[in-house]
Amino acid sequence: MSEQLRARILSELEHVVLIDPHTHINPHAPASQTLADVLGYHYYTELAHSAGLDRRQIEEPGLDPKEKVHRIVNRLDDLENTVQVSWLIEMCRNFFDFTENRITPDNWESLYDRSAKMMADPGWEAHVLGKSNLEQVFLTNDFDDPLEGFDRSRYIPCLRTDDLVFHLAQPDIRERLATAAKSELGDSSAVVKAIGTRFDHFKSRGARACAISLPPNFQPVPVTESTVEPIWQAVLSGRELTGDESATLSRFVFWTITEMCAEHHLPFDLMIGVNRRVYEAGVYQGQDLFDQRTSLILYRRLFNEFPRVTFPVSVLAQASNQELVSYSWIFPNVVTSGHWWYSNIPAYIELDCRSRLQAVPKTKQIGYYSDMYKLEFALPKFAMYRRILARVLAEDFVQTRNWSEERAMDLGKLVLRGNVEQTFPG
Amino acid sequence: MSEQLRARILSELEHVVLIDPHTHINPHAPASQTLADVLGYHYYTELAHSAGLDRRQIEEPGLDPKEKVHRIVNRLDDLENTVQVSWLIEMCRNFFDFTENRITPDNWESLYDRSAKMMADPGWEAHVLGKSNLEQVFLTNDFDDPLEGFDRSRYIPCLRTDDLVFHLAQPDIRERLATAAKSELGDSSAVVKAIGTRFDHFKSRGARACAISLPPNFQPVPVTESTVEPIWQAVLSGRELTGDESATLSRFVFWTITEMCAEHHLPFDLMIGVNRRVYEAGVYQGQDLFDQRTSLILYRRLFNEFPRVTFPVSVLAQASNQELVSYSWIFPNVVTSGHWWYSNIPAYIELDCRSRLQAVPKTKQIGYYSDMYKLEFALPKFAMYRRILARVLAEDFVQTRNWSEERAMDLGKLVLRGNVEQTFPG
Amino acid sequence: MSEQLRARILSELEHVVLIDPHTHINPHAPASQTLADVLGYHYYTELAHSAGLDRRQIEEPGLDPKEKVHRIVNRLDDLENTVQVSWLIEMCRNFFDFTENRITPDNWESLYDRSAKMMADPGWEAHVLGKSNLEQVFLTNDFDDPLEGFDRSRYIPCLRTDDLVFHLAQPDIRERLATAAKSELGDSSAVVKAIGTRFDHFKSRGARACAISLPPNFQPVPVTESTVEPIWQAVLSGRELTGDESATLSRFVFWTITEMCAEHHLPFDLMIGVNRRVYEAGVYQGQDLFDQRTSLILYRRLFNEFPRVTFPVSVLAQASNQELVSYSWIFPNVVTSGHWWYSNIPAYIELDCRSRLQAVPKTKQIGYYSDMYKLEFALPKFAMYRRILARVLAEDFVQTRNWSEERAMDLGKLVLRGNVEQTFPG
Repeated sequence: MSEQLRARILSELEHVVLIDPHTHINPHAPASQTLADVLGYHYYTELAHSAGLDRRQIEEPGLDPKEKVHRIVNRLDDLENTVQVSWLIEMCRNFFDFTENRITPDNWESLYDRSAKMMADPGWEAHVLGKSNLEQVFLTNDFDDPLEGFDRSRYIPCLRTDDLVFHLAQPDIRERLATAAKSELGDSSAVVKAIGTRFDHFKSRGARACAISLPPNFQPVPVTESTVEPIWQAVLSGRELTGDESATLSRFVFWTITEMCAEHHLPFDLMIGVNRRVYEAGVYQGQDLFDQRTSLILYRRLFNEFPRVTFPVSVLAQASNQELVSYSWIFPNVVTSGHWWYSNIPAYIELDCRSRLQAVPKTKQIGYYSDMYKLEFALPKFAMYRRILARVLAEDFVQTRNWSEERAMDLGKLVLRGNVEQTFPG
Repeated sequence: MSEQLRARILSELEHVVLIDPHTHINPHAPASQTLADVLGYHYYTELAHSAGLDRRQIEEPGLDPKEKVHRIVNRLDDLENTVQVSWLIEMCRNFFDFTENRITPDNWESLYDRSAKMMADPGWEAHVLGKSNLEQVFLTNDFDDPLEGFDRSRYIPCLRTDDLVFHLAQPDIRERLATAAKSELGDSSAVVKAIGTRFDHFKSRGARACAISLPPNFQPVPVTESTVEPIWQAVLSGRELTGDESATLSRFVFWTITEMCAEHHLPFDLMIGVNRRVYEAGVYQGQDLFDQRTSLILYRRLFNEFPRVTFPVSVLAQASNQELVSYSWIFPNVVTSGHWWYSNIPAYIELDCRSRLQAVPKTKQIGYYSDMYKLEFALPKFAMYRRILARVLAEDFVQTRNWSEERAMDLGKLVLRGNVEQTFPG
Repeated sequence: MSEQLRARILSELEHVVLIDPHTHINPHAPASQTLADVLGYHYYTELAHSAGLDRRQIEEPGLDPKEKVHRIVNRLDDLENTVQVSWLIEMCRNFFDFTENRITPDNWESLYDRSAKMMADPGWEAHVLGKSNLEQVFLTNDFDDPLEGFDRSRYIPCLRTDDLVFHLAQPDIRERLATAAKSELGDSSAVVKAIGTRFDHFKSRGARACAISLPPNFQPVPVTESTVEPIWQAVLSGRELTGDESATLSRFVFWTITEMCAEHHLPFDLMIGVNRRVYEAGVYQGQDLFDQRTSLILYRRLFNEFPRVTFPVSVLAQASNQELVSYSWIFPNVVTSGHWWYSNIPAYIELDCRSRLQAVPKTKQIGYYSDMYKLEFALPKFAMYRRILARVLAEDFVQTRNWSEERAMDLGKLVLRGNVEQTFPG
């Protein structure tokens, strides 16, 4: 009976048309062209590498896509237990007429060829969107992205600000900003103005969020222009910054960006907790890890000083989830956002989903985003989340609290879809 | 079958007459007078504020109680998912003949009026205690509380020491202590003696615990009188203390209080992990949060040096629960105590309850306390805990370990009631 | 149906012949002689002490084994809820024809006498191994253990290096190393050579792992001989080291040992997170606790610089498990290893087991080790783990992911046994 209840709730949730509020989709090539695009997703390359596949085998220059898939498939059995491989199988069964339960050295080639043909169909992108019940897809755009040449009512621009906050001392980033802003960046107030042009640009092209990923020890505080000015001049003179100077510059830019989020009425997605390049010999995008010793208390001043900016917060460490629940329960401008990366596995999603639904106002929860690089991943990733959400709704609300099924379904729809629209208004 | 088993255990636990070992009840006005007392509980005001209700709407000076309820009810739908609202509904259904599942703009007023009439009945307090199966209620008394004018066999005095430990440099606190102790507090040894008078006062009036809430970075160590004396003289001279001086004074007072707990055979409730006033624009009592980066290792010296003092420990961060389990399993004087505040939601209670029952001697576990401000909350809060406890007993003990139902029920009764009597003897 | 599925998987797992990859077995006296050996396990002495039994009662010099058991049994009721006591009962029922569910002051003596007779049987060790399905048992050997006089194909030598890394400044440890290595240890390069002789010795006698337990704040980095040389000379001169010097010496030795693991192709078991002697008045082996504020980021450089050394990692704090999952998912040389000590209770094993099976390549997971001091404990400890593993396989793989039962069973066998062979090749 419990199982049937859950199935009924799940079935209802499966009808919800989705807006995916955080992805890395390239709107000029949103769908995959071959299985190499799928198996090239860092989850598979890094897990295959972790299981023993040499990085050079995966990243050999000029490697033929089919041969790349072949090599990864040869290692796939070692990863078959992971939820990431379950996404792969579910995707292949849904999109590529795959009927088996494993991709093996024996069956991969026909799958590769058949899927390549299917993906070559001009209607493939629309087919994937339709079958995935996906209406809109948020992007992650560089600050100098022209945001032209794609359907901005489907693919929603979002301003990614990591480069500005953490790499502005690098000449290439600085030049890109100067070029985009048509400015010399001769002093810190010119930097502020240049960043402002990026907000104007993004807002005028329908951007609905600003976003950044942050290391576990980042602590945003305001920095005055007089403090940052000598640092900025040092940057311009080509002197390498000290660690402290670099941190001060980052804080200055971060605070400036937050001020512009306030001004331009943009939510600021904070993705908290990643250490970059921890495993330097790892595969592309498979080098980052984290330090669980972080706290949202580092954001105390930010949350207090920007009551008008909504901060959808994702945390990388599962240990941070209770803080996220509690800070969202207290601060009107803090919203729980999805299940990120190393926390995006069922064991943690279930616990985090339950705690959020039990203690955060229902209107302040972004249930899920796919974080995908290719459209085909939305289907299995959202499917994983929905199954967990349906179980939590069935057990914690219908069974434990005697809610009607309809009421529980409505709660599910709200966190799956309604809150995305409310939090990121178009 | 599993469900029936759980129901049988639950039913047995529901017959346990309770002693609530930590509340904020005012013994001169223990029960609510209107729903404004109920919805004025910070859980509702802070969640409503978090969901968008302006603080000024809630805390408007001279606001009529009924209008206050009206305003919060208008926002209640946004919080309906929270376990805190489930307490409210369960309370209204049990005490106020409420038969619906939601409090809405349409039905709240009749509920308000009906409940006000019921609460006006002179027997209301006794009715609530009886229906809640509540025999004794521990208080949280200021150090200068006269502890007169109420039934001390029902409402048990407990000495709250936050003000002494953290705010003694404030003139008003110092004066209150001087007045209560009839002493000039001219030097640190006079402070020690003055604090001693408070223990005499509380013990003579039936106090059964001393209690304090502590920030995540607090580390108790002994401080000599010669170290603290110049700091105390600075306090008397009106000079503002440095952060270090302030911390030294806090440690001195804390250690002094612990010595007095030893001398007076009082357990010392430690509630570890709260940062006060993190969200300064929050509603009353809705401004505090925490930093999960804390450890019971900070209490190493305290636990070692006071083997005769029982420390019932509550932790705010769920990440601290495993430490609490482990420290209670090793230190004879450390006892697990309830599920506090941000950890007091079913997702966390269940995990914490399971781990404690699996690894801490059964005699060293205080199952639950309500932390309530008004008597009506004991019923739904203990009900939530009992349902979780019954499930854990059914699954982990009867099903997994083949315990008899009776044996599992006895374990449940021990943590619900027996250990409270043993830990806080009358 | 779910229950039957789990039972079928469990039954299959029970047929797996085990290799226990980490124990403290004394190969010259692997099995118990009386129940005092069993109840002398620190879990029972420390829990009994925590529940109120005076340490002097337990550790009285010259205490008769039977009287020791008697005293602990008198306190056993207070611990009956713990999973540790469930191991005891399961062991007694399996090995000592015990038919009751509790060991009490009324029934313990006949159990004691009967079991003593059974253990006196010359075939007892073989009987325990057989009934436990235990083929090989890894040891924890001091660096100067001669490794002679026992069957090294059954009891596998492992080099425990805590003394070398953390206590080499102590004269007794230094002398033991000098004696074992037949060297004067006159300078740091002599120390390196002396440690090298220990690796030769262990490798020549079939050692299959090197192991160490580490405090939460340990951070391995390389130290040059020129940096350590003056420190080593200070050691030789009898001067007490400062904390920094001591830490530098530890890091030097640790890094040296890791280099030798690389050279000798030995995996290096890292058991991360224990603070020693936190409760100094505790019973033997019942004094250690932890600080959850630790991170695998401290091992970043180690994992990067030794790609050829396999590091099976155990973490003491459950809060560290997600990091362990993530680091194992990214670093080819990091492997998850068992459920250690304060994390070795069902509530935590289940969550940790689920997350590992969902996100770490299946070939990189050592499911369980017993950590036992006496052979009789393998049976109930592995039984506890297998029951949890069977449930996770049934729910997360067969039910949620539609795996066949056989496939789920194969996954279970791999983490229970196959990976032990692969990770620690003979």
